[in-house]
Amino acid sequence: MQDMIVVKIGGSEGIDLDAVYDDVAGLASEGRPLVLIHGGSFETNVVAEALGRPPQFVTSPSGYTSRLTDRRTLEIFEMVYCGRVNKEIVEKLQWRGVNALGLSGIDGRIWSGPRKKAIRAVENGRSRIIRDTYTGRVDRVNSDLLALLLDAGYLPVLTPPAISDEGEAINVDGDRAAAATAVAMGAKALLILSNVPGVLADFPHESSLIRELQEEEIESIAQTAAQGRMRIKLLAAKEALDGGVGHVLLGDARCASPITRALNGEGTLVFKETQVRSDGL
Amino acid sequence: MQDMIVVKIGGSEGIDLDAVYDDVAGLASEGRPLVLIHGGSFETNVVAEALGRPPQFVTSPSGYTSRLTDRRTLEIFEMVYCGRVNKEIVEKLQWRGVNALGLSGIDGRIWSGPRKKAIRAVENGRSRIIRDTYTGRVDRVNSDLLALLLDAGYLPVLTPPAISDEGEAINVDGDRAAAATAVAMGAKALLILSNVPGVLADFPHESSLIRELQEEEIESIAQTAAQGRMRIKLLAAKEALDGGVGHVLLGDARCASPITRALNGEGTLVFKETQVRSDGL
Repeated sequence: MQDMIVVKIGGSEGIDLDAVYDDVAGLASEGRPLVLIHGGSFETNVVAEALGRPPQFVTSPSGYTSRLTDRRTLEIFEMVYCGRVNKEIVEKLQWRGVNALGLSGIDGRIWSGPRKKAIRAVENGRSRIIRDTYTGRVDRVNSDLLALLLDAGYLPVLTPPAISDEGEAINVDGDRAAAATAVAMGAKALLILSNVPGVLADFPHESSLIRELQEEEIESIAQTAAQGRMRIKLLAAKEALDGGVGHVLLGDARCASPITRALNGEGTLVFKETQVRSDGL
Repeated sequence: MQDMIVVKIGGSEGIDLDAVYDDVAGLASEGRPLVLIHGGSFETNVVAEALGRPPQFVTSPSGYTSRLTDRRTLEIFEMVYCGRVNKEIVEKLQWRGVNALGLSGIDGRIWSGPRKKAIRAVENGRSRIIRDTYTGRVDRVNSDLLALLLDAGYLPVLTPPAISDEGEAINVDGDRAAAATAVAMGAKALLILSNVPGVLADFPHESSLIRELQEEEIESIAQTAAQGRMRIKLLAAKEALDGGVGHVLLGDARCASPITRALNGEGTLVFKETQVRSDGL
């Protein structure tokens, strides 16, 4: 979809959500086709604690951290992501005159793919296998449904979980789901906004922001510089670029007009060397 | 929409949800256009208790009981209705091969109407005014969006809240929202299923089931026989009939094939005297 952008907004502390909503409303009023994708990790931790089910995280042998999602955790996850966060975003956008419409990846099979049979986790240097986890990855995006809604004037607001090939809800990574969505929709750009200015060469020093990153450099940066959640954002960036998305921007959501700023190149621009980088967004 | 039915399923104890899902899947596979609307009251009470926010209910001077919904309660309400219950229903239907898609009334402004400035509650025989309540009623249904989704092969699964004219999420009664939806869609029938067999002349004796009820009799029955939640279901039935819906059935959801049974006339059929009642569903 020409000119379409996919914006992923994190669920961490520090993000100025009102600024995101204002910016989305401005872009929507200019007629920019936009799909908004969000997380809810921080709020899920709060609710899970309150419900006596403290969150647990595991780290894979390749160093990616993810939520340990048994069935009860998945239910809490859905309450927060699909109920609390998704509906608040939709409400705040509706309040600004945007005809937003919130869906999870299971609705209309927006995001589907295989559930992992088991995951391998590293704990104190030892590896163990975890089963009964409701996690997986997005292999297919129902772009027909998204196009149907966009064409009818709605702004889709998407959130995990996705649905497995067997029809179970599965926790998937929001950044990578955003990348899959951008690829499937032929989006012009993917913007991944969080509570850091972009990729930092010397985390957490924000003056060490890397402004441009070639795809070929991602792997070495991910090993040396990128911390925590940024590693998976870089993986998502690579997946989007490999799928043909022209621009991927890792930007800051703690400021006014975070989307417009990212579109103007603030943050870390990740690109393929072969791309003409001067075309405007 | 010809042949379309709107099914409202309650959120009380005793309901056999798997039977509802099986029945929906069967009807969907026969090509019956169907909109499913659900509650989540029981589960909301459980989560609200667990989060240290016990539910409060108020009774209006005319005898209707409703949830006292301040902003924090609304957030918990959204978590359970839109997150926990809606997504579970969508997942269970997807698992059965139905391309279900869950939306709240705020998504795409499916259900909109005025927020109540204040509500009058009766407590121990004394009347008081309550403000800061996020409640209202459905005046408009986005039938275009529902038709768009139905035509594209999706089965909409709808839940409160609705959205106020000012763009705030508001708690609305699910039965009456279902009635408004049936009216707006020109539905052939509205089925309101709960954990009783229908309207009971001598509650809770199930042998006192009233099998047929003319619209003109609703008021007197509501005064004498109908208990608790059944009163508002009768009000919803009346609103649907007045809006041109041909058949309203108040049926039992504690059994196998609850929708098919209701379509076959089990439960309480509420009708206008002027209607030809012999046309099949």
